[in-house]
Amino acid sequence: MQAQPSQTPVITLTTDFGLQDAYAGILKGVILSHCTAAQIIDITHGITPLSITSAALTIDNAYAYFPHGTIHIVVVDPGVGSERSILALRADKHIFIAPNNGVLTPLLKKNRFMEAFRIENSDLFLPNQSHTFHGRDIMAPVAGKIAGGLELSRVGPPLALKQCLRIHLPEATVTGGNIKGEIIAIDHFGNLQTSITQKDLTARPSKGNLSVTLCGLTIKGLSRTYSDQKPGALLALLDSRNHLEIAVSGGNAASELECQIGNSVNISYQ
Amino acid sequence: MQAQPSQTPVITLTTDFGLQDAYAGILKGVILSHCTAAQIIDITHGITPLSITSAALTIDNAYAYFPHGTIHIVVVDPGVGSERSILALRADKHIFIAPNNGVLTPLLKKNRFMEAFRIENSDLFLPNQSHTFHGRDIMAPVAGKIAGGLELSRVGPPLALKQCLRIHLPEATVTGGNIKGEIIAIDHFGNLQTSITQKDLTARPSKGNLSVTLCGLTIKGLSRTYSDQKPGALLALLDSRNHLEIAVSGGNAASELECQIGNSVNISYQ
Amino acid sequence: MQAQPSQTPVITLTTDFGLQDAYAGILKGVILSHCTAAQIIDITHGITPLSITSAALTIDNAYAYFPHGTIHIVVVDPGVGSERSILALRADKHIFIAPNNGVLTPLLKKNRFMEAFRIENSDLFLPNQSHTFHGRDIMAPVAGKIAGGLELSRVGPPLALKQCLRIHLPEATVTGGNIKGEIIAIDHFGNLQTSITQKDLTARPSKGNLSVTLCGLTIKGLSRTYSDQKPGALLALLDSRNHLEIAVSGGNAASELECQIGNSVNISYQ
Repeated sequence: MQAQPSQTPVITLTTDFGLQDAYAGILKGVILSHCTAAQIIDITHGITPLSITSAALTIDNAYAYFPHGTIHIVVVDPGVGSERSILALRADKHIFIAPNNGVLTPLLKKNRFMEAFRIENSDLFLPNQSHTFHGRDIMAPVAGKIAGGLELSRVGPPLALKQCLRIHLPEATVTGGNIKGEIIAIDHFGNLQTSITQKDLTARPSKGNLSVTLCGLTIKGLSRTYSDQKPGALLALLDSRNHLEIAVSGGNAASELECQIGNSVNISYQ
Repeated sequence: MQAQPSQTPVITLTTDFGLQDAYAGILKGVILSHCTAAQIIDITHGITPLSITSAALTIDNAYAYFPHGTIHIVVVDPGVGSERSILALRADKHIFIAPNNGVLTPLLKKNRFMEAFRIENSDLFLPNQSHTFHGRDIMAPVAGKIAGGLELSRVGPPLALKQCLRIHLPEATVTGGNIKGEIIAIDHFGNLQTSITQKDLTARPSKGNLSVTLCGLTIKGLSRTYSDQKPGALLALLDSRNHLEIAVSGGNAASELECQIGNSVNISYQ
Repeated sequence: MQAQPSQTPVITLTTDFGLQDAYAGILKGVILSHCTAAQIIDITHGITPLSITSAALTIDNAYAYFPHGTIHIVVVDPGVGSERSILALRADKHIFIAPNNGVLTPLLKKNRFMEAFRIENSDLFLPNQSHTFHGRDIMAPVAGKIAGGLELSRVGPPLALKQCLRIHLPEATVTGGNIKGEIIAIDHFGNLQTSITQKDLTARPSKGNLSVTLCGLTIKGLSRTYSDQKPGALLALLDSRNHLEIAVSGGNAASELECQIGNSVNISYQ
């Protein structure tokens, strides 16, 4: 008889619940009621309320740093209580539980073994589900049971991948001598994260010197890290996700520039 | 010989500490120093500072989603360092540790087996208790020791339930054809939570169509969920606690209406 | 054969990441990928961005409440990606991992067994380290591996303690009949924390009655706790770290006084 390696199940939470109310805590209570040993980790509860795009970018950025087999619950759910279904998706050796509203779009693009199920087996749910909090009533107990050993296929019928809703996510376009992108997020430090990736930058032979233009300003050249420039200087660099980022050395770019999510960012070479 | 089921002890925290300072982290350090295996879950640290009412409503809303035997620490403690006592209450198969200032009022109304103790056994405390942080010096180490197996009765002398302080909590009144309630909380989404419960709504035979009046506005009828109305429309529904809630579909009711906690909410039938 | 006590490893996080982005969650994912059983506790992610002083005071205030052997990761790292090194410090029976930028200054002053290493063994890091997120790429995996049993000396070469950078931290001065200090932090309750300690107050024979002067106001005498004064009254007391603190009973001193971090606080006796 061979002992199974005892592995602590890991469950992450990515929501727009904020931290002022008890919503996130309640989700954890439900999970622990089904699997006391689970490691429950907040990716964030600070997604802009109802922003499916923001949640999609966040879970895509974070999931791969967790152990294989981690169960990721993503709850940004403007359609809660409506006819939208709830997904359980296995992709890239992780499991994702989320409303079928496009929030898992980046995962559906991974070129790896994938299967999806529609969560419909109400035996797994809390009794008397509300119409406004399916995170608590459906997603948390199902995640807890999967963490406790339930097979994924038991949550409901298989779903063809083309039935998993996809949304448009911002991507840069490389045309001739230029790259056109946009600001996709602004972080706690006021750094402006863009849709332009390292891959976009290397997609063409770089002739001449790179210039980044955004919000009426131009930045010449790429820095390697923040402190490569003097305090207060505006700079562009590749961030920790290999995206182009605009920052102020030792400062807050968002509060110094008048930029918003969605503003265009262009790269040219001279 | 029969093996005991190995159960991970669960401890929750509900405080007004916020998350900017180290207070919540320090509480967890003290708990882990007494019981390294404990699952420590934040219900919230975002209670309005010193608001006993808000903390009472929050713990009442959240506790039952945790496993039986969970230890809930509630620290909203304007009287810290004064003569107010500290309670350990067993109620509804959960354990609560909190100042005796009314914050456990909803638990004292549960019609179930209950016992209370005054936490006075200073052998269990951190040495050299401060006069300003009994969460750290008294409640956390006692909770950690109970999680580690200490019998509840060891924390101090039993306390008659009538000696546990109760505060007035907002409740709706049903009189004749009308229900009078108030806004009791505003959540992260700007939804207005009221003191009117589903039970209040069904307490009378509903003759005619329901109208909700608050802050000079009237809403006709109840929706089932947020997306039942067009984006931007004001609506009333039963929330995940079976309370009447006022919301804006896809929006933020609190920022669009000029409403505050304590404003009256009335229901009539026409 | 003697069983080893099974001890759950504890890792704490003190950063300026905030909670809106996925940064803190990603750190935890990396740690769990190396040590699934770790207890990961947030001390805070609310350090003022890039404030090394604030992080130094916070970790010094919090660490000793955690079990011996706890690994504390402190990431406030304006010099990320530059030539600054990363430290692993054993001090006072705890382990600290942080940039060598002064953030561990208070620990370097502890008069106890201490050893330091420069974290340089890149076999322990994530592959393809970024230039902007060494918390994720270096500190988290190293902490996870130490939690899993790696000897501290394996992280890199020993570092002489005098090579560990120290910064100036605010301390009060006791001269003749007066004590001169300053406001060093303002907490979530609006309490003003000062650099004046209980030790400073007892450093001289107290002749006459104590007066505290700050921001153009004078407070006479020390209170024992907040509720010793009437609601709304300004008071001075010894806080839970044995520092002099200025508060408003039942209120918020920071919002009522026009005081800031760095403002001077003086004590005299009359």
